[in-house]
Amino acid sequence: MTIINSLSNDDHLHEECGIYGIFGTSDAAAHTALGLHALQHRGQEAAGIVATDGQYFNIHRGIGHVGENFGEKNQAVLAQLVGHSAIGHTRYSTTGETAVHNVQPLFADLEFGGFALCHNGNLTNALQMRENLVRHGSIFHSTMDTEVIIHLIARSRNTSVIDRLIDAMRQIDGGYSLICMSKDLLVGMRDPFGVRPLVLGNADGAYILCSETCGLDIIGADFVRDIHRGELVIIDSKGIQSFFPFPPRPSRFCVFEYIYFARPDSFVEGNSVYAARKNIGKYLAYESGVDADVVVPVPDSGVPAAIGYSEASNLPFDLGIIRNHYVGRTFIQPNDKVRHLGVKLKHNANRKQLEGKRVILVDDSIVRGTTSSKIVEMVRRAGATELHLRIASPPTTHSCFYGINTPQREELLAAQFDIQDMANKIGVDSLAFISIDGLYSAMGKTSRKNDNPQFCDACFTGEYPISRVDYDSGRIIHKS
Amino acid sequence: MTIINSLSNDDHLHEECGIYGIFGTSDAAAHTALGLHALQHRGQEAAGIVATDGQYFNIHRGIGHVGENFGEKNQAVLAQLVGHSAIGHTRYSTTGETAVHNVQPLFADLEFGGFALCHNGNLTNALQMRENLVRHGSIFHSTMDTEVIIHLIARSRNTSVIDRLIDAMRQIDGGYSLICMSKDLLVGMRDPFGVRPLVLGNADGAYILCSETCGLDIIGADFVRDIHRGELVIIDSKGIQSFFPFPPRPSRFCVFEYIYFARPDSFVEGNSVYAARKNIGKYLAYESGVDADVVVPVPDSGVPAAIGYSEASNLPFDLGIIRNHYVGRTFIQPNDKVRHLGVKLKHNANRKQLEGKRVILVDDSIVRGTTSSKIVEMVRRAGATELHLRIASPPTTHSCFYGINTPQREELLAAQFDIQDMANKIGVDSLAFISIDGLYSAMGKTSRKNDNPQFCDACFTGEYPISRVDYDSGRIIHKS
Amino acid sequence: MTIINSLSNDDHLHEECGIYGIFGTSDAAAHTALGLHALQHRGQEAAGIVATDGQYFNIHRGIGHVGENFGEKNQAVLAQLVGHSAIGHTRYSTTGETAVHNVQPLFADLEFGGFALCHNGNLTNALQMRENLVRHGSIFHSTMDTEVIIHLIARSRNTSVIDRLIDAMRQIDGGYSLICMSKDLLVGMRDPFGVRPLVLGNADGAYILCSETCGLDIIGADFVRDIHRGELVIIDSKGIQSFFPFPPRPSRFCVFEYIYFARPDSFVEGNSVYAARKNIGKYLAYESGVDADVVVPVPDSGVPAAIGYSEASNLPFDLGIIRNHYVGRTFIQPNDKVRHLGVKLKHNANRKQLEGKRVILVDDSIVRGTTSSKIVEMVRRAGATELHLRIASPPTTHSCFYGINTPQREELLAAQFDIQDMANKIGVDSLAFISIDGLYSAMGKTSRKNDNPQFCDACFTGEYPISRVDYDSGRIIHKS
Amino acid sequence: MTIINSLSNDDHLHEECGIYGIFGTSDAAAHTALGLHALQHRGQEAAGIVATDGQYFNIHRGIGHVGENFGEKNQAVLAQLVGHSAIGHTRYSTTGETAVHNVQPLFADLEFGGFALCHNGNLTNALQMRENLVRHGSIFHSTMDTEVIIHLIARSRNTSVIDRLIDAMRQIDGGYSLICMSKDLLVGMRDPFGVRPLVLGNADGAYILCSETCGLDIIGADFVRDIHRGELVIIDSKGIQSFFPFPPRPSRFCVFEYIYFARPDSFVEGNSVYAARKNIGKYLAYESGVDADVVVPVPDSGVPAAIGYSEASNLPFDLGIIRNHYVGRTFIQPNDKVRHLGVKLKHNANRKQLEGKRVILVDDSIVRGTTSSKIVEMVRRAGATELHLRIASPPTTHSCFYGINTPQREELLAAQFDIQDMANKIGVDSLAFISIDGLYSAMGKTSRKNDNPQFCDACFTGEYPISRVDYDSGRIIHKS
Repeated sequence: MTIINSLSNDDHLHEECGIYGIFGTSDAAAHTALGLHALQHRGQEAAGIVATDGQYFNIHRGIGHVGENFGEKNQAVLAQLVGHSAIGHTRYSTTGETAVHNVQPLFADLEFGGFALCHNGNLTNALQMRENLVRHGSIFHSTMDTEVIIHLIARSRNTSVIDRLIDAMRQIDGGYSLICMSKDLLVGMRDPFGVRPLVLGNADGAYILCSETCGLDIIGADFVRDIHRGELVIIDSKGIQSFFPFPPRPSRFCVFEYIYFARPDSFVEGNSVYAARKNIGKYLAYESGVDADVVVPVPDSGVPAAIGYSEASNLPFDLGIIRNHYVGRTFIQPNDKVRHLGVKLKHNANRKQLEGKRVILVDDSIVRGTTSSKIVEMVRRAGATELHLRIASPPTTHSCFYGINTPQREELLAAQFDIQDMANKIGVDSLAFISIDGLYSAMGKTSRKNDNPQFCDACFTGEYPISRVDYDSGRIIHKS
Repeated sequence: MTIINSLSNDDHLHEECGIYGIFGTSDAAAHTALGLHALQHRGQEAAGIVATDGQYFNIHRGIGHVGENFGEKNQAVLAQLVGHSAIGHTRYSTTGETAVHNVQPLFADLEFGGFALCHNGNLTNALQMRENLVRHGSIFHSTMDTEVIIHLIARSRNTSVIDRLIDAMRQIDGGYSLICMSKDLLVGMRDPFGVRPLVLGNADGAYILCSETCGLDIIGADFVRDIHRGELVIIDSKGIQSFFPFPPRPSRFCVFEYIYFARPDSFVEGNSVYAARKNIGKYLAYESGVDADVVVPVPDSGVPAAIGYSEASNLPFDLGIIRNHYVGRTFIQPNDKVRHLGVKLKHNANRKQLEGKRVILVDDSIVRGTTSSKIVEMVRRAGATELHLRIASPPTTHSCFYGINTPQREELLAAQFDIQDMANKIGVDSLAFISIDGLYSAMGKTSRKNDNPQFCDACFTGEYPISRVDYDSGRIIHKS
Repeated sequence: MTIINSLSNDDHLHEECGIYGIFGTSDAAAHTALGLHALQHRGQEAAGIVATDGQYFNIHRGIGHVGENFGEKNQAVLAQLVGHSAIGHTRYSTTGETAVHNVQPLFADLEFGGFALCHNGNLTNALQMRENLVRHGSIFHSTMDTEVIIHLIARSRNTSVIDRLIDAMRQIDGGYSLICMSKDLLVGMRDPFGVRPLVLGNADGAYILCSETCGLDIIGADFVRDIHRGELVIIDSKGIQSFFPFPPRPSRFCVFEYIYFARPDSFVEGNSVYAARKNIGKYLAYESGVDADVVVPVPDSGVPAAIGYSEASNLPFDLGIIRNHYVGRTFIQPNDKVRHLGVKLKHNANRKQLEGKRVILVDDSIVRGTTSSKIVEMVRRAGATELHLRIASPPTTHSCFYGINTPQREELLAAQFDIQDMANKIGVDSLAFISIDGLYSAMGKTSRKNDNPQFCDACFTGEYPISRVDYDSGRIIHKS
Repeated sequence: MTIINSLSNDDHLHEECGIYGIFGTSDAAAHTALGLHALQHRGQEAAGIVATDGQYFNIHRGIGHVGENFGEKNQAVLAQLVGHSAIGHTRYSTTGETAVHNVQPLFADLEFGGFALCHNGNLTNALQMRENLVRHGSIFHSTMDTEVIIHLIARSRNTSVIDRLIDAMRQIDGGYSLICMSKDLLVGMRDPFGVRPLVLGNADGAYILCSETCGLDIIGADFVRDIHRGELVIIDSKGIQSFFPFPPRPSRFCVFEYIYFARPDSFVEGNSVYAARKNIGKYLAYESGVDADVVVPVPDSGVPAAIGYSEASNLPFDLGIIRNHYVGRTFIQPNDKVRHLGVKLKHNANRKQLEGKRVILVDDSIVRGTTSSKIVEMVRRAGATELHLRIASPPTTHSCFYGINTPQREELLAAQFDIQDMANKIGVDSLAFISIDGLYSAMGKTSRKNDNPQFCDACFTGEYPISRVDYDSGRIIHKS
């Protein structure tokens, strides 16, 4: 028997984590649970919360969705997570025996007291640091890069929590956002280039740090501002303080957050994600318009760009593919041949809107191309007469080292083939990607500054802004 | 603490069951599991499958989604469900202690051998029949109306399975579709008025019976035809036979299947559900157009009608509300006031597309009106300057007795208030429903034949085509 | 890998059920849970309780020990079992898919109201009755003989619960004790020959019915009397009434209850079980004394007889075999040969007390002889120089049909071999069983009345007092 | 409601751990599971096994009995524990949130590779060491004293595993036996005074280390010898080597292992535990004989001493109290007063053997005295006319710091009252303990050498042979 997973057909890059922290409210853990639910799209495989009442720390981490760990059926769990301050984490994937040990937030009882930490992103010299620490007698309990930070803090010669944390982070390279908590402080931090997002909110006097603004909306909190690149904010009972412990670096916010990772109702770096996607769809229509009867998105991620494409091209928008939202189910394939079962667990053709039509299919990106082929065949079998695939991002040719789960370069379709060959393999009449300059235009820039690009676009260009020590030295990389 | 359920805010009528049967393939149970997954929208709370290899019957029923009961993690379960023939069921809700006993399919080891049965719909004289049977010594093990059928079959004086089944069904009133199975037969049946849907498909020689065509698509089966009202089909190793054991009655297919229950990619009675919904949206725009800047659906059910409305009105369509698809999560409300948390677990305003705009909000129906009020407030707080609510069905004023979970009449908003009062309660600048005649026009009828309507529209008109014996005699009704 | 079960090496006949009922106290279910714990030796695989408050019936049945189903971790379960009256059951073994359906007490909602029933013993014409009932349309939900009684009650033409019950039981043959409960009655009943035990107790005005007096002791209840053979007692709020609905029959109490089944601290038929066992040990020493250094019991069941043997023979008693009381554990046999692992999971030789000694080993019975051989080898390897096995029952040569789980006759060692051959197979220097007359003498009878024996001793003599309809007609027997 | 635990009435001191290790056999983990089952009496609340195949380490630890974690239902677990070498642990009690983290064996991936460790006993300066380590940046993941050893090994400047281990253990005080394992070594070690037991066995060339010889018997292994006090043995593929890394100290084997902790079929320090207990019973009869009708043990632990007492006094031995071996069950007390329910969950009076008799009751020890009082009342209510309690150990007046779970001194009955007051409180006609010299005589010593006692008897005398650094410095002690 073959096992068929509706997720395994999800041929996307994946954000690896969502993070959340709140200070200054009763029920801090319940707020955090709700915030993590809003960030669920950033990681579906595990979730954890640590709360403190200023004296004790309580922790729960588990495999599964936020609601499976902190929902109504887990009232007893939430009741134990007493405190005015809490931080939480949701992660993309964990595998193997040490799965639970690899769930964040991490917690340690250090010399100065309890300390909890979670992060979104990736530390590019963590393995090198880890080897060093083990050589000097540190004992690691997980395979996560995050644990390096805890040990560097434990071994720091500095006295205060903040000085120890700065001491630790100055030894570390990478693209990350970080939330940590001691018994009386909540701390947020972004790497010097600001690769991953982190926003600040406020709800009736309680401060919130979280990956995206949708985490503020769900609890009715107001958006205050983005945390700046290289900034460290300290929140305590007296209020909020800001520090910049690193030398200044240029901004390199991840452009893929706009393309796919962030939720469309979020604002990142002050911009509406939905509006950015629609705009990319419009520029895509300008660059590679084609005569057709209908614009059809690959749901759900292709919808905003398809609406933008439809508006710019004046062609009708229709849901030619229907998505089954009972997500994440894995089934057993019957022995009889069931064609493209995986893709059908999640998508079905809406035959009436496709039959006899010239179709423009809009998707956000192509990674391995496996799902695209299956969807294209499904649409053709439903009777489409022409099929033009339009992609709302440039060709994905390089792996990410800053917190996004990407296949090895060899598996990326665009790293192996030119566009015409890709079109042939996928089976479409035409294929077009938005150009790199078109993308920057859609994002409101005049053009890409090639000597100092406004975003991190390494997955499209191979220009990595942050050093990759572990990769360059041939170390095997465990991602958090 | 208050418990907040993202489902409890789902102010919709609900289909109570999806049914599936297949004959003539190895892995019949695995096919059925896939078919039920495609029918998951017809019932999320429990699922069951019975399979037979012509000698033994194996059964598994459980609380939860299809994937939770028959997915990859339950390989051992599926491996036990050996057979060339299987039937399955997914149901909307079960409560209380007897929950598991109330999960279908029912199975009994009768004098002539094993017999399994599941149905979608409601039997309107089941309680009366049940009292009779108990008085003569029958012992019931569930509170489902379905069990009456099993006992009538067990007590029938006829010899063959089919004669016993017909004998049983002739004693029963109601709106239903039925699939049952003995060790060498698969049987499908619709009530004389054809209230609930049932379609026939074929995959490499294996026959399939299921509620909607999306259950055929998922396994790559071909659609053959709808089962007719009052028809009984018998499928065995020799092929398929058709019988009409009831006196002929006029068609009264449930019009709400088009409006909300069926999946948009399904065809029922030969018509595309998606196309019907778009058409209703168009007629809604013709009947109650209003000047505005954007057409926004309440996702997901309002989307096709909103697209139709947008096309007919020439106003732009946009996703002004974003849905969180990590469905069905229930959380604990923090003590701090979190406004309309329930609705926000599932929906969030897409502020950028709403701010400063005159918005036409399109939804499929209003039941109690509770969610509508909350969504309207959320949209207003996001900055909409005008809000016009358009509903793609007539006012829901009456309960359903034929298989749809409806609140008591007193809880139906439209049963209590006129449209202007409803608009005031919900807080919109204008409110309009499609008219009953507009609905029939959108469905391709010239008009409603008032003496013999083309559909069952009792929830809008109170005209019930099938007698309601139990209700009229004051019996408390347990729904299956 | 081989699976090794410490239980599977327990080469004993097994009582199949313990039953309990109480009327007239709050917390009836909690009392019943304690009573069933005291009766745990009569059945370890499943347990169930039904309670009623005079209006509603609540039920819980589950696989496992009483404490696993009704202990402190199941407070919520017990809290639901509200009522002043409850009945409970613990059973020896359940297998297969229908396991949970086969757990007692049975409950049905009959025309006259709720009715719960459990029994200890076996109905010898249940299959014949069942076929009859199915032919007339009754639907069975278990494979237990007990369910026949429920259906006969449901179909009885009589009006009152008691008349219906009597009507049912008059159609049934077998050796059984029965406890049943309607919303205002508790009923106890023994078969006309009184094969299985049932005692009556009282605790502060609440009446108790249970299999053995140890079930009274645990809750501090007073023993009132044994229920008589063929007696039916009805307990309600007015007190207790006694009826004798069957023609009088001679007493045939199961003598094996004295030998092995009952707990040694219980009194059955007015006699101390422990004293009876010691007495059997004494007569065994009189009949088959032998010169030796030490009397060693096979623990725990051989202990009282060994103490009696030691006293009568004036030889020292010592625990030459130690039992590991972490019972019921099943382990995986390592590939390396581990000799007689199964027996060692439960027993180990106490080498110091065996080395260089002539040992008299006392056990209660021999069924298949498999464990005896292994224990004998273990004792020999510990250094015993002579080994004389003495058995505190006559040779077990026939199967039981009245509620005791016995192997097929062909598997009974004593049905195949004479005593010398048995001694050779087991590997002892001498082997002796108590004689059938010795047994009757130990029980205080002058001798066995061969034309009308004072006990049921069919497993030793093959003289079955009660007709075996199903067996004689070749029906396959499901035991309850 | 009150919760009643049959264990909480077990008024005994408790051994805190059993340990096991095997090297040089396939199925090392399955052997270890069996060995731990034989050591189950040394700890019932949690169990763990680590195995290595020379390259990878696999680990499973869980709450519950050995059979619940490594029995037949956990085949998949055992199948993962591949290797020719394994160590295992069973522990007495774990509480609180960190329960699972506190289950042994501990495992860490150190600079030199994987390292697993488990111990029986207590480290008396662990808290002091821990504070030191934390101050230098070590991060602890449990509250067990054992973890200190791992960190000392990780930080040692030595190169080889053994040198690092010796380096660590030289910094540590306490009474302990230790088993540890690297990828190619199995190591056993006893503290310099030899407080806790550890034996060496051999099965077909595979070496075994375990707490008691009963762990050898279960897998058919031969006993080789006791590990000496202060000895470290290294087992690898070449054989076994012995080292003595500490200065020599006098023997102080725990005398309570003979009295209660060890299994009666085990040999410790070359002596039969059962024979020692019988001998103590004999000396007890010599010292404090009394005229009576019957000698009755409190089962099971009082049985060997009672048999010895019976032999020496020439009074008959009888089981006047019957034990329910369905152990460890916790129930809810009904509201109605059920007298001494807790004790009755485990024990019941065997009335027939007590009524009208003068009874000598023999128990192994008195800790708080709570159970004794209840048993005495139960025996009196069963009709005993006189009751003389004889205890097979001296009065327990002091706490243990070397690995035995003891109450605070204030809770020890003998620390508060003289013998006559104790007799009054417990309600017996006479009470006697064996004298400290009588105990030494029974153990085969001429007398106790008061300046250098042959055993650790601190719980009777308050003379502690090993320094108690943490206790003396007022640190709160977590026991492992």
